[in-house]
Amino acid sequence: VTPRTFNLALVGFGNVGRAFVRLLREKEQRIRDEYGVAARITGVATRRLGWLANPEGLDTAALPDGRTPACVKCAEVREWLRAARAGVLLEASSLNKRDGQPAIEYLRAALEHGAHAVSANKGPLVFAYDELRALAREKRRRFLFESTVMDGTPVFNLFRETLPVAGLRGFRGLLNSTSNVVLAEIEAGRTLAEAVRRAQEIGVAETDPTDDLEGWDAAVKVVALARVLMDAPLRLDQVERVGIASISPEQARAARAAGKPYKLICRAERRGGTVHASVRPEQVPLTDPLASLIGTTSCLHFDLDVFGLTLIEHKPGVEATAYGLLSDFLRAVREPEAL
Amino acid sequence: VTPRTFNLALVGFGNVGRAFVRLLREKEQRIRDEYGVAARITGVATRRLGWLANPEGLDTAALPDGRTPACVKCAEVREWLRAARAGVLLEASSLNKRDGQPAIEYLRAALEHGAHAVSANKGPLVFAYDELRALAREKRRRFLFESTVMDGTPVFNLFRETLPVAGLRGFRGLLNSTSNVVLAEIEAGRTLAEAVRRAQEIGVAETDPTDDLEGWDAAVKVVALARVLMDAPLRLDQVERVGIASISPEQARAARAAGKPYKLICRAERRGGTVHASVRPEQVPLTDPLASLIGTTSCLHFDLDVFGLTLIEHKPGVEATAYGLLSDFLRAVREPEAL
Repeated sequence: VTPRTFNLALVGFGNVGRAFVRLLREKEQRIRDEYGVAARITGVATRRLGWLANPEGLDTAALPDGRTPACVKCAEVREWLRAARAGVLLEASSLNKRDGQPAIEYLRAALEHGAHAVSANKGPLVFAYDELRALAREKRRRFLFESTVMDGTPVFNLFRETLPVAGLRGFRGLLNSTSNVVLAEIEAGRTLAEAVRRAQEIGVAETDPTDDLEGWDAAVKVVALARVLMDAPLRLDQVERVGIASISPEQARAARAAGKPYKLICRAERRGGTVHASVRPEQVPLTDPLASLIGTTSCLHFDLDVFGLTLIEHKPGVEATAYGLLSDFLRAVREPEAL
Repeated sequence: VTPRTFNLALVGFGNVGRAFVRLLREKEQRIRDEYGVAARITGVATRRLGWLANPEGLDTAALPDGRTPACVKCAEVREWLRAARAGVLLEASSLNKRDGQPAIEYLRAALEHGAHAVSANKGPLVFAYDELRALAREKRRRFLFESTVMDGTPVFNLFRETLPVAGLRGFRGLLNSTSNVVLAEIEAGRTLAEAVRRAQEIGVAETDPTDDLEGWDAAVKVVALARVLMDAPLRLDQVERVGIASISPEQARAARAAGKPYKLICRAERRGGTVHASVRPEQVPLTDPLASLIGTTSCLHFDLDVFGLTLIEHKPGVEATAYGLLSDFLRAVREPEAL
């Protein structure tokens, strides 16, 4: 059987983009066998290289070396999507927490072009979820974003595909690795500055860790989850937000010693007609599985009306985010199941 | 829009069957709105009442009181499926760990009749998975069994729907409530006999707890998971199986005091071409989320090639199992998604 071949256009070709291409190659045979699907990268866009397209497939192996593969260079996203004859956009640009741009514009352009739009970026969920969802419906294409929260772990697809008509009352989780690593380093005796440096050394914290330490990154995730899973029109400024810097090293160590360590806990809860949400350091007893989670491990607990369900993603690397993109791609293009 | 109406036939009308009917009623509106589906119970079979059918819908409210609703009484399963004009069989008979009967025969009859076959029973997965799967394909119907492991928590549907082309290297979990409750009671100072009585009082252990205490129930779950998720032709007698009675109360208490309590751990692991599986008490450090799980809470950790994923189901009641049946019903009858 000839597979249906899809042209993929990638915005961003850093660690995630490269891991995605590796994973795609690694899983090529299973994707063909199980989904009847083949994929080729026909567009890559990065800040450094610009908008590169080749509808016959780009030699992505050349890109990390700075060599330019055979391609056309486009001026902007729409021209690029056309030149790449893109069937699916995979967008992994970095988060702009003020307005979600330029990711929103890329996703909009992809859907208007007639491509499925897959994003690893939380911004569009916070600032343009309704619009992009409506546009995707109108164009009969998919807007998917599994890797925005907990990387490759199914969260959005979990509800959409495997928890039909379940009622979600609220959730609670540990969603920011930097805060988790920094708190653990402080408990181990380091100062805040030393702990941040350590988190940067192991590749968890960014050069400017402010968004993580002040709880912005976690708050954005809370809004994305509440927006999509609880259908709550929650704004970022409505999330009560306290970062881990509000805890002194002495408090952190005393709490750990007392068996109730601090964790940066994300919460959302339906009360009456509205959803209340917060991100703040909370003390967690050791009997709570959350208390023992370390490093990049993340966790979400869902309070469903039928039972309670916790997901823990262990030590995800960049390939976990890449897997989130891959699973969205397959979700977007898979045929309705033959019974 | 007129909903598509499905006739449901239930084998078993104990706690699970009744909870299913309650849940169906509670979720009726959402099922109609979100899936365009309506359901009515047209068949109920219990050991006491026999095979009752009414193609216009049975008054299930009468059944728990022993009143007989307007219906025909059939002699056996095939006649009953015809009389009920069953579109979906929901089978929640009790486990026979030797041969999986009569559940297998009921599921076979349903598929041959042209109905979807949904089972809450692990036996058919251990003894007839290949056959029932092939029969379902041939008849273009579904054979689904989400509630057999971890009740309502998506495990099988999780892999089928949300973890495409992920490689499963192995899993590890806590899947038997009775063993977990009994161990906790022993740690708290009770004898094995007292602990079992306590587990029976709170409705966790059955009158004859042998299958749980000897690890049979957990081993059956391991085989079901390995069979379906790892495509491994594992037989029940190939699972290394040691029950919690092998641990003396003194050992259990000493291990807890030392911060490495015993848990009845289920394992399967792919090594070379084969899957090795075991069920046995293992000591778990307190830093492992498994160590803190109590009561009926169950847990599965999946070692995927892209990341590690743990699911914890908190204190499920009978409605969690009923939800597993409901989610399978909706999975079976939902239309291919309109893009």
